[in-house]
Amino acid sequence: MEKVQETAEKIRTMEVRGAGRIAKAAAEAIRDYAAGLEVASMEEFATSIQEVSSFLISTRPTAVSLPNAVKLASRYSSGNVEEARQEIITNANLFIKRADRALEKIGKIGSRRIQDGDVIMTHCNSHAALSIITTAFDTGKDISVIATESRPRRQGLLTIRHLNDFSIPTTLIVDSAVRYYMKGVDKVIVGADAIAANGALVNKIGTSQLALAAHEARKSFMVAAETFKFSPSTIVGNPIEIEERAADEVVAPSVLADLPHVQVRNPAFDFTPAEYIDMIVTDIGIIPPAMAYTVIKEHLGWEFEEI
Amino acid sequence: MEKVQETAEKIRTMEVRGAGRIAKAAAEAIRDYAAGLEVASMEEFATSIQEVSSFLISTRPTAVSLPNAVKLASRYSSGNVEEARQEIITNANLFIKRADRALEKIGKIGSRRIQDGDVIMTHCNSHAALSIITTAFDTGKDISVIATESRPRRQGLLTIRHLNDFSIPTTLIVDSAVRYYMKGVDKVIVGADAIAANGALVNKIGTSQLALAAHEARKSFMVAAETFKFSPSTIVGNPIEIEERAADEVVAPSVLADLPHVQVRNPAFDFTPAEYIDMIVTDIGIIPPAMAYTVIKEHLGWEFEEI
Amino acid sequence: MEKVQETAEKIRTMEVRGAGRIAKAAAEAIRDYAAGLEVASMEEFATSIQEVSSFLISTRPTAVSLPNAVKLASRYSSGNVEEARQEIITNANLFIKRADRALEKIGKIGSRRIQDGDVIMTHCNSHAALSIITTAFDTGKDISVIATESRPRRQGLLTIRHLNDFSIPTTLIVDSAVRYYMKGVDKVIVGADAIAANGALVNKIGTSQLALAAHEARKSFMVAAETFKFSPSTIVGNPIEIEERAADEVVAPSVLADLPHVQVRNPAFDFTPAEYIDMIVTDIGIIPPAMAYTVIKEHLGWEFEEI
Amino acid sequence: MEKVQETAEKIRTMEVRGAGRIAKAAAEAIRDYAAGLEVASMEEFATSIQEVSSFLISTRPTAVSLPNAVKLASRYSSGNVEEARQEIITNANLFIKRADRALEKIGKIGSRRIQDGDVIMTHCNSHAALSIITTAFDTGKDISVIATESRPRRQGLLTIRHLNDFSIPTTLIVDSAVRYYMKGVDKVIVGADAIAANGALVNKIGTSQLALAAHEARKSFMVAAETFKFSPSTIVGNPIEIEERAADEVVAPSVLADLPHVQVRNPAFDFTPAEYIDMIVTDIGIIPPAMAYTVIKEHLGWEFEEI
Amino acid sequence: MEKVQETAEKIRTMEVRGAGRIAKAAAEAIRDYAAGLEVASMEEFATSIQEVSSFLISTRPTAVSLPNAVKLASRYSSGNVEEARQEIITNANLFIKRADRALEKIGKIGSRRIQDGDVIMTHCNSHAALSIITTAFDTGKDISVIATESRPRRQGLLTIRHLNDFSIPTTLIVDSAVRYYMKGVDKVIVGADAIAANGALVNKIGTSQLALAAHEARKSFMVAAETFKFSPSTIVGNPIEIEERAADEVVAPSVLADLPHVQVRNPAFDFTPAEYIDMIVTDIGIIPPAMAYTVIKEHLGWEFEEI
Amino acid sequence: MEKVQETAEKIRTMEVRGAGRIAKAAAEAIRDYAAGLEVASMEEFATSIQEVSSFLISTRPTAVSLPNAVKLASRYSSGNVEEARQEIITNANLFIKRADRALEKIGKIGSRRIQDGDVIMTHCNSHAALSIITTAFDTGKDISVIATESRPRRQGLLTIRHLNDFSIPTTLIVDSAVRYYMKGVDKVIVGADAIAANGALVNKIGTSQLALAAHEARKSFMVAAETFKFSPSTIVGNPIEIEERAADEVVAPSVLADLPHVQVRNPAFDFTPAEYIDMIVTDIGIIPPAMAYTVIKEHLGWEFEEI
Repeated sequence: MEKVQETAEKIRTMEVRGAGRIAKAAAEAIRDYAAGLEVASMEEFATSIQEVSSFLISTRPTAVSLPNAVKLASRYSSGNVEEARQEIITNANLFIKRADRALEKIGKIGSRRIQDGDVIMTHCNSHAALSIITTAFDTGKDISVIATESRPRRQGLLTIRHLNDFSIPTTLIVDSAVRYYMKGVDKVIVGADAIAANGALVNKIGTSQLALAAHEARKSFMVAAETFKFSPSTIVGNPIEIEERAADEVVAPSVLADLPHVQVRNPAFDFTPAEYIDMIVTDIGIIPPAMAYTVIKEHLGWEFEEI
Repeated sequence: MEKVQETAEKIRTMEVRGAGRIAKAAAEAIRDYAAGLEVASMEEFATSIQEVSSFLISTRPTAVSLPNAVKLASRYSSGNVEEARQEIITNANLFIKRADRALEKIGKIGSRRIQDGDVIMTHCNSHAALSIITTAFDTGKDISVIATESRPRRQGLLTIRHLNDFSIPTTLIVDSAVRYYMKGVDKVIVGADAIAANGALVNKIGTSQLALAAHEARKSFMVAAETFKFSPSTIVGNPIEIEERAADEVVAPSVLADLPHVQVRNPAFDFTPAEYIDMIVTDIGIIPPAMAYTVIKEHLGWEFEEI
Repeated sequence: MEKVQETAEKIRTMEVRGAGRIAKAAAEAIRDYAAGLEVASMEEFATSIQEVSSFLISTRPTAVSLPNAVKLASRYSSGNVEEARQEIITNANLFIKRADRALEKIGKIGSRRIQDGDVIMTHCNSHAALSIITTAFDTGKDISVIATESRPRRQGLLTIRHLNDFSIPTTLIVDSAVRYYMKGVDKVIVGADAIAANGALVNKIGTSQLALAAHEARKSFMVAAETFKFSPSTIVGNPIEIEERAADEVVAPSVLADLPHVQVRNPAFDFTPAEYIDMIVTDIGIIPPAMAYTVIKEHLGWEFEEI
Repeated sequence: MEKVQETAEKIRTMEVRGAGRIAKAAAEAIRDYAAGLEVASMEEFATSIQEVSSFLISTRPTAVSLPNAVKLASRYSSGNVEEARQEIITNANLFIKRADRALEKIGKIGSRRIQDGDVIMTHCNSHAALSIITTAFDTGKDISVIATESRPRRQGLLTIRHLNDFSIPTTLIVDSAVRYYMKGVDKVIVGADAIAANGALVNKIGTSQLALAAHEARKSFMVAAETFKFSPSTIVGNPIEIEERAADEVVAPSVLADLPHVQVRNPAFDFTPAEYIDMIVTDIGIIPPAMAYTVIKEHLGWEFEEI
Repeated sequence: MEKVQETAEKIRTMEVRGAGRIAKAAAEAIRDYAAGLEVASMEEFATSIQEVSSFLISTRPTAVSLPNAVKLASRYSSGNVEEARQEIITNANLFIKRADRALEKIGKIGSRRIQDGDVIMTHCNSHAALSIITTAFDTGKDISVIATESRPRRQGLLTIRHLNDFSIPTTLIVDSAVRYYMKGVDKVIVGADAIAANGALVNKIGTSQLALAAHEARKSFMVAAETFKFSPSTIVGNPIEIEERAADEVVAPSVLADLPHVQVRNPAFDFTPAEYIDMIVTDIGIIPPAMAYTVIKEHLGWEFEEI
Repeated sequence: MEKVQETAEKIRTMEVRGAGRIAKAAAEAIRDYAAGLEVASMEEFATSIQEVSSFLISTRPTAVSLPNAVKLASRYSSGNVEEARQEIITNANLFIKRADRALEKIGKIGSRRIQDGDVIMTHCNSHAALSIITTAFDTGKDISVIATESRPRRQGLLTIRHLNDFSIPTTLIVDSAVRYYMKGVDKVIVGADAIAANGALVNKIGTSQLALAAHEARKSFMVAAETFKFSPSTIVGNPIEIEERAADEVVAPSVLADLPHVQVRNPAFDFTPAEYIDMIVTDIGIIPPAMAYTVIKEHLGWEFEEI
């Protein structure tokens, strides 16, 4: 339990961060907890696993990858403690292995869609989106990238550094210039914080503006997302909440102190409707957004009777 | 001539700035130059006025308001020096008086389109757009404003300060959040750097994204523009050039120093197509963008034979 | 003055109704008043005409045709009483004659756009729209009409009776069936209560749904409107107010009596944006909606300095 | 068989009406018939069940819920009479239980998508749509409703009475006012008479106009539909026929008697294309319309070889 | 009169063809006829001019440039024969001079909209459109052209020959490939056979498909048209008729002989709606299509009272 | 092996052509090869089958139906040679039987969507599309067809001959006239060369223009496609390559010889995005394009681990 608490603490304090790393850390925690769990009965085993699962999920309740990881890792069907323990260890290891390979697979699959000479626009700093871009470049495709600044946290600066390390020609623009440069873009590739049952995308604030401008100019809009980014609870109607972050990310508190009639709003994410998404590149292949329901049902072990 | 050079210098160094102030300063300079001009013949008078006009226009060749002001102020029809001089003085004073009243008229006309309870989004820091907003608020309409940060120069900070001075409830957002908040917006109001003969708008980078998001959600998109913002030379096909500003407005040079594969692009303006503009509020009333050609012909003294 | 009051009363009580008849009655009243006016000075003459004009306009302040008629009929430029009187008589008679011919001209012009075999949808009961339809039929074109019921007042029943009198094959549908039948429609023709400076149409509630469904299916949407339906005051920003009528037009008061949480809303008109209007058939020819500003300026004697 | 005939009669005469109640009554009839069926052989059993099924389906051939209920309730795989009988009893009871819970589930799932302050528009009188609305209100969400009159039968009057019973603030409008009020609407929720394999919706005439107006203004359009509303036979191309009802629902026969050139058309339903539907709230969760095929295959026991 | 008949014959037999050449030939014929006309009275003069005008117009009644030329050339206001004769000579010469300069002006104005590196798509073989393209190339802009085959007459072969003469890099494609290549196109430029009062374009069959594909991909769609291509009679509702040409332009008669159930339809032109046209490049500058009415009124001497 | 080589040769030389016939020939070759294969071990059997499969697929690598046929026909699960051989024979025969029935099924299913009086537009010469049309006509529906010429190969001439044989009233038009006639069309039906995982269609050049024009006018756009036209490899990102054919299909070489600045581009296919496709009629029923992924997974035996 100690190790579980330690992992939970690291997730909570963002020492472990990024949807993929959080998911793997949680699966490991569940696995190791199950491996060492000493119980007197199957009931006790079941209760303990349940408690630890809930505890881990509660550390960052809005991250879709966390409950998905916990649920997939902690599955078992046997009524026998030792067998159930083995099931959990197997399932957790399977999840971890798959997560490890997901970024690589997405990069490989998505890169095949990139053509020589393509100009690719990306937003914020998505590992999955960058995996596609760098894989395409490494397989010899002559591409260049337009990266947005991504105010207020300016994750675009991470992105241009990453792309520079790969020697990929990159142009940095402010977020307001997205539509101005869309004319010369061939494809837009972004990551995902979550994907809902109706195919809508939740991603960094500003993503839906890229999608809208790409749609207007009929440029291809691709989302790179591991299957554990799909949100099962949206099937039963639960909305994905948009985190609102502190005003001081946008403007210094001293500026606002003088302005009693002014407030700052700072949502971290926005929604992109399915109709603006041409394809989602996942670790199980390229799907249209309308397939989200099927992905959730077939790959996330979701059972409807949970309602 | 000394005073003309002084005025030209102030415009060039941006001691005098803002399309309206530049226009008025140029008209004053022409007027005073004509008033004091000592010539031996009508030919000399004509040549001198022509030279001074060209000199003034050359100080900031891309600002549409400057050649418009010079052309309107320096018009005369008489072949007699004294009469021509009087014509210029009269025309220059008329231009100045009209420019003085234009902001007020736009505020009055535009404010009538604002309804109680309206949420208005604006971009950058336009005097004409703010004239509509503050006039509406001062005539008792209960409105609130969403102002964008307007990276890279962050003119949104000027806007929130101005609105705060009027006690108008205001919300500051980053440019990426425009579409996220559009759902709750009733009207978008922006200014204009120039309006082309086909009704297209040139304004601060990011304007076309507000227009696109407003169009998508069918919210009213209003442009506030004095008639001297309309560009006669676009009628004969001359494009309006988009100024590209320094990279260090976007990111510190030290960051880029390490990144040989990265460049910054920083256009100051973008184009908004006429089809996304519901109306243009001018000092001669509300017009649809397709009326731009008529405005130029009837109010800017433009003669086609110039081609 | 007695006759003016009588006319005003008839307009107020809707004994005289319909935009065209109101306009002509007002022009006649102004004319006859001017003809018989006994004054001691030009000042007195001007004041009297002004008062009577305001009085007539005030009878139904939201009808655009009324102030247009009064303004056009009461124009004079002379400073001499007898000459001014003659000018008013001439202008009033000219207005009346033009209004008389407007319906006929619209019918003639618009009918040329109708093709053999056309299925035409219309809404409510517009004299101008019906003028086009019946003229086309009378000139031998084999057409049929789909007429909406036009709840709550069910003016569609007037329309089908009118068309039946002309032996035009007509189908009556409920307002909800507009989109269902749009597939088989060739042209939609409606009237106008007012047209704004930006080309937007104000007409019977439901008109904008016909326009939207026609736009979706790319069917031609024509508006039939006399020039005196264009609204000069919208140029300076004045909105056209939408009349809200009594709840009992929609549902019997006894039904609502039992339902404390229920209210009825019953707006008489709606707005159709210019982009859904293919052409406006007027007595001065076919124009695109963006020409509204020009029509107001050139045909309604509107002077901008009024602001 | 007597009871089957009685049930069939009640469905035919609309003593039993509403898609859900019809479906349950048919399942009960099949179940009770199978339970009491005395046969000499399996062949006789099969033939009898087949005949009764066809008979029940024929009572109202266009209602999708009826054949779906009969088919699901009458399924068996065994070749032994007693086992087959038990299978039918079990399947029929399962169907009835699921239908009983479907409205409640839809209400629960759909209500989670409703936000505090939402203004919801609905059309006609759908139990499933109202289940979402009343569940949302009962769980403390501060919402209000705009209900259409729904000519010609005016089922809107049933809807406002139902909502009034729940103390939900409600506004009644005529069908022509849908687009006028759409600006202030947050979500549109309607029921379904049938859903085709390509995701198209068949529902009360006028539904597609709400969908079109919602799409135009980018408001969320939700359909509430039990899984037994999906139409298996559309997979193999069979169209869903639109019932045309009597002219006297629209206008009194006496009015038409005088109008030989006028006819009335009165379709009861219309089609809404899948692209205007944001989500379908079903008893198995929220799905995009493109999932209709999967729902039919996985939840309605449909076998392709039937073609 | 002999020379008039000769000119009419040349136009009828298409010895003189092309809208511009027809127009000039007609103006010359009117001028020379007026110059040599011997009459006894003003009445006789008027009648003669009227007869010759009608005769010339009747040679190819659907060509808009022909009646425009005749009407502009034959205008006079004087009641004195010699003065009227002089007016006609002056007006005809003015028309010819302007037509001579129109192509050059359009080329000069339009070419300023072309940017270095632009890929331009064109359809059929328009002198005005090609004037823009070759002027841009000759002023040093590095452009290339995609030319459609333009079945059935394959005028694209004339276009590629013309462009080859200018050494402009050109690609020939079949008409079906327009949308496939639109992605890489920057601007589409076409000519005009006629432009209607509502801004709609009549041009070679297939033009509206280029416009639709350009609109879909948000590429600029420019029309090159002399002012005498605008159709005054459309203001009063007269439709522009679409010429249908012989089947053997499409397929050999021998093929059809065996196919009794097959017919060929071969319209020579189609309509492009104003909303797909970004700008019209005329000899009086660049205008939006909504300005067509103003062009007709101000530049074609059209008088409304003609109705 | 001899027979396999013979079949491969026939496919390569297009003696066997058409997606369906190629698929069946390949399945037969695999079957017969497996039936006669003499091997010493299971390893040898597996290797031989693998080699022959690859050899067959390589004959025309871009045809989707070929690898689909080979993969489905050559499946086996047993580790025993005789059993595996029987599995292949069974699977190959099953594939052949299904392919035989697919055209008939598509015709039967699709024809139910055709209504009396429908005008159907088709492009090129698709057996599956024509199967729907002729089945509808043979079942008594009074329909007519508009067939495009389909330059450059003019397969439209094959289509009109085929339709004439069925006595179906048919109109031939040039490809540029598609939009002009779309107004009078009820449904567009085309075939498929391939369908990608995201529902996009690859078909004869020009197909996407029909789809775009149908979408603009909201006419139904149906694709007729056997399930073996769906492309599994697009799931893992492999693009479908567009074959570019010889220039002399478009223009005689002698014409180009004189034109050094002119080149010809002649792509044989284009892409139609899923959003323009209303339904795909397959041998397993009507599906929306978003179901492509499910079809590939469930009906083409595709295993993701292949990546």
